[in-house]
Amino acid sequence: MTLILHECPPSGNSYKVRLTAAHLGVELERRPYDVSRGESRTPEFLESVSPHGKLPVLEDNGRMLAESNAICLYLAEGSDLIPADRFNRAEMLHWMFWEQTDHEPNIAVLRLWLTIVGIETLNGHQREEIAIKRKAGNEALGLMDRHLAGREWMVADALSLADICLFAYTHLADEGGFDLELYPNIVAWMERIMLLPRHEPMFAAPKLALVS
Amino acid sequence: MTLILHECPPSGNSYKVRLTAAHLGVELERRPYDVSRGESRTPEFLESVSPHGKLPVLEDNGRMLAESNAICLYLAEGSDLIPADRFNRAEMLHWMFWEQTDHEPNIAVLRLWLTIVGIETLNGHQREEIAIKRKAGNEALGLMDRHLAGREWMVADALSLADICLFAYTHLADEGGFDLELYPNIVAWMERIMLLPRHEPMFAAPKLALVS
Repeated sequence: MTLILHECPPSGNSYKVRLTAAHLGVELERRPYDVSRGESRTPEFLESVSPHGKLPVLEDNGRMLAESNAICLYLAEGSDLIPADRFNRAEMLHWMFWEQTDHEPNIAVLRLWLTIVGIETLNGHQREEIAIKRKAGNEALGLMDRHLAGREWMVADALSLADICLFAYTHLADEGGFDLELYPNIVAWMERIMLLPRHEPMFAAPKLALVS
Repeated sequence: MTLILHECPPSGNSYKVRLTAAHLGVELERRPYDVSRGESRTPEFLESVSPHGKLPVLEDNGRMLAESNAICLYLAEGSDLIPADRFNRAEMLHWMFWEQTDHEPNIAVLRLWLTIVGIETLNGHQREEIAIKRKAGNEALGLMDRHLAGREWMVADALSLADICLFAYTHLADEGGFDLELYPNIVAWMERIMLLPRHEPMFAAPKLALVS
């Protein structure tokens, strides 16, 4: 079974999937797209990869699966990245939904605007939005930081997909103008993640799958 | 085991959970809050119910779980609202994440602004946002409508949480100024859902749990 990851390499949503695969020892064949050139919006992409026009998309034996967190859950099924306890598992899902509703729309979008597309290309409405997203992003980081006080991982006492999915854009928050030094529990948690034996940085060269 | 649903009764996110429980024959004790009076942001709520300050929150034996879609997944574990096939299950999750990222921020927010809080209370930035959310909301509805062409349910050939979670705000889209008559496959799908024996409308009186 060859798994193909259709991805935008600098996107945190694509990185989540690669990081999940690294922890699982699963090999992914990477297919990069340049989103800035509209490569995920071409008629061919919409027809043959995903009608959503967004990345990442996982291809498994010709079947296509979109939404980064759904892909991570698909890859990790049955592994120890998903807590065995039912309530802990629900808590993990809670953080994964929260990441998409309260964290990513503020922290990832400011990174996109300020570091990737550039403030000079934003329209007036988007420029007004910066302060709104700055406030909401800091609230999200504050909530994570308080949650991590006295804890090693987001859920229970082990690494789970909640950590991996939240790490992706949190560790890029400085590129959106957020000062992570204000959040010492987050910094300590990121260091724990980066020291894990199977951790893979965002821009690592692809490596061969490990046998688990 | 008494399950308590801390909820905002007119919210689609709270309705999703009630509708899931109705299909499962699970009884919920309902605790309503008036969000317009800030009842989910009081120090007591943040301390004892959820630091997120959002509803719904499910209380199970004193443990609190936030995020509507995570609550639905928790309640429905092991039931036929979650597909048995691994890829179908991932597809269901994909639609549930998509609901929170592409559907709810446009369709639910316009309903909130136009029907609940009222356009006269919006600030200039929010008024500018209406056209952006109108366009994105119609794109989301169009995508659902094309997906539902020739299909009865969002995933595979049975009702799943993808249907329940998407039904909640889709069936209220007219309150956000969306014309659902433009989406005949969605209308037919909503009718199928409303005809299910265990369906419960949004404003139904609480009923006793059925034994499944």
